[in-house]
Amino acid sequence: MKRASRDAPDGTGPARRGVLLRDVGESGLIALFRKKYGGVPRPGELPIGDDAAVVRVPGARAVLSTDLLVEGTHFSLAYFRPEEVGGRALSANLSDLAAMGADPVCYLVALAAHPSTSVATVDAIYRGMAASAKPSGIRLMGGDTCRGERLTLCLTVVGAVGRGKLVSRAGARPGDLLYVTGAPGWSRLGLALLRGGRPSRPSGWRREAMRAHLSPEARWREGQAAARSGAVAAMIDVSDGIHTDLSHLLEGDGLGAVLAEESFPVSRSFQAASAALGIDPLDAFLGGGEDYELLMAVRPGRRADFLRAARSFPSGATLVGAVTKAAGIRVRRADGSWLEGAALPSGFGHFDSPNRRTR
Amino acid sequence: MKRASRDAPDGTGPARRGVLLRDVGESGLIALFRKKYGGVPRPGELPIGDDAAVVRVPGARAVLSTDLLVEGTHFSLAYFRPEEVGGRALSANLSDLAAMGADPVCYLVALAAHPSTSVATVDAIYRGMAASAKPSGIRLMGGDTCRGERLTLCLTVVGAVGRGKLVSRAGARPGDLLYVTGAPGWSRLGLALLRGGRPSRPSGWRREAMRAHLSPEARWREGQAAARSGAVAAMIDVSDGIHTDLSHLLEGDGLGAVLAEESFPVSRSFQAASAALGIDPLDAFLGGGEDYELLMAVRPGRRADFLRAARSFPSGATLVGAVTKAAGIRVRRADGSWLEGAALPSGFGHFDSPNRRTR
Repeated sequence: MKRASRDAPDGTGPARRGVLLRDVGESGLIALFRKKYGGVPRPGELPIGDDAAVVRVPGARAVLSTDLLVEGTHFSLAYFRPEEVGGRALSANLSDLAAMGADPVCYLVALAAHPSTSVATVDAIYRGMAASAKPSGIRLMGGDTCRGERLTLCLTVVGAVGRGKLVSRAGARPGDLLYVTGAPGWSRLGLALLRGGRPSRPSGWRREAMRAHLSPEARWREGQAAARSGAVAAMIDVSDGIHTDLSHLLEGDGLGAVLAEESFPVSRSFQAASAALGIDPLDAFLGGGEDYELLMAVRPGRRADFLRAARSFPSGATLVGAVTKAAGIRVRRADGSWLEGAALPSGFGHFDSPNRRTR
Repeated sequence: MKRASRDAPDGTGPARRGVLLRDVGESGLIALFRKKYGGVPRPGELPIGDDAAVVRVPGARAVLSTDLLVEGTHFSLAYFRPEEVGGRALSANLSDLAAMGADPVCYLVALAAHPSTSVATVDAIYRGMAASAKPSGIRLMGGDTCRGERLTLCLTVVGAVGRGKLVSRAGARPGDLLYVTGAPGWSRLGLALLRGGRPSRPSGWRREAMRAHLSPEARWREGQAAARSGAVAAMIDVSDGIHTDLSHLLEGDGLGAVLAEESFPVSRSFQAASAALGIDPLDAFLGGGEDYELLMAVRPGRRADFLRAARSFPSGATLVGAVTKAAGIRVRRADGSWLEGAALPSGFGHFDSPNRRTR
């Protein structure tokens, strides 16, 4: 009795603790992933189980992105459910493919975990990834598992892009129209909400904000349609906030942009949520990251083609500004005043000292 | 004075500590990698710097492998130099491509490190990868960097394989001849040597053993030539030891193998090293991992073709046994006795309990 209560101060005794990684071992875990979540190979392909995976890449150009997520840095199981950790990770990576207009092909997952981690936790992470992966058809085709002190997840996604369809960050020109999908900023509100404790049965704006932060959807349909329209000159996903990611879009060409607050897709519900959380809605919209919306520079002469393509966007698209020859980003506020330079909310940098860190 | 000595108990004061990750930030670090180690893109490709990398994949089939390395689990900077950590990691991944007969295309590196890590340490890791990458022409085309408590490295390698050239683990048949490249086991001896403290100026077998463990070379030339010869039915890289990896090669088809100790490429120097380290040379040869040699099943009727191809192997190849219809691996010792089943050295499994762990 005494022993059991010492082992399980939180009330989860040996009977409820479930099976641990050390019980099934590395090979047992790989067999589980392969069986439950492994992608179905097509002719000429090789799935999980060999030295390497083999996948077909239509067009013979592979689009590749890799992301490392470390418990404590990117997520905490204290307020993320493991399904959400997996789902968000997959969406974030899928979003990188979306931003190139690529067709999703496959993903690889490398996982480090402590042997005392429950198989159920790891299984839930993979289940979350599989759920986020399903709509786009991207398949789990390989990975690696190892021991580590902290739960660590490294996702690599592979896409394919046909000749001439690729859209990168470079290529914007003065006069290009700036469109953004969906409603960026909700994820930032969700983060603020969750920091105050996870609501058990959220509704209204709380639900919307939580969903945006915990289960973001990658805009892969939007990215594909945008690339196919031929009207989008440059594209980036909004992972670090519109201000920061727009800067990335413009910096290579030394350009700037003017944005108009009036046009921002900021709903009354968003404003109410911002007020309740004590956050400036413009800060959340311009500085909030992890929404995984897409920001696109559209040639003005091709606007009609773009709008035709945008009709198929599940998340819609909103014109928020235009590219300028003069460098720097300026925001015209609803009251006619201008916001620019250091007054704009800035993004997030790993390794930054606390005083340089903005969130 | 007092302050400085408190900050630097090991004698490395602020003047010598160098620049830290927190000083350059994430963007500074990415700029450094890109400039010093970034691969040169070919027409239609995109290097480091966009949402995703884009690479050409001749033959339209990508070969993919990912590996996660965590400080404390896979390496310790206490006895690995950072160049060696990087070099070994790249070689291990390149070896996975080699085992498929793939042509190396590119690699991605995701890195987590504490902000107090010196830029010089991280730079040395990337320098080590670049040095291991150079002979094969595989290029650094993307990655990710983030904050983490422990140094963590996730490498993803991409190769290409033309139609019909792919060699996997599956496909061995009874009667196939088993060849191994190089001299497996040296890495195991190197590990044992290093555990007793790193020799400062090793020579003779100590040098050979250390080199094998710290700077293994991937057999990508051998893998390519083997695949092109058309004589190799199945192939695997020896990362977990010949016994374990041969089991993987055979298990899918329910086959077995007979190996003959007399034929093993075990030199007198290897035997002397084993004796000095108190290790059974057969244990090191069959159970030692991380040599990254290749194990190949060759059709007996295509032996001449294989031997022609093997003339180009920098590491050579040795006939060590043959595939049998009966499952299980049996080793005929030099004294005529047989070794099989639990008597054979087994491999390494992450998450295993200490009592199930064999090294």
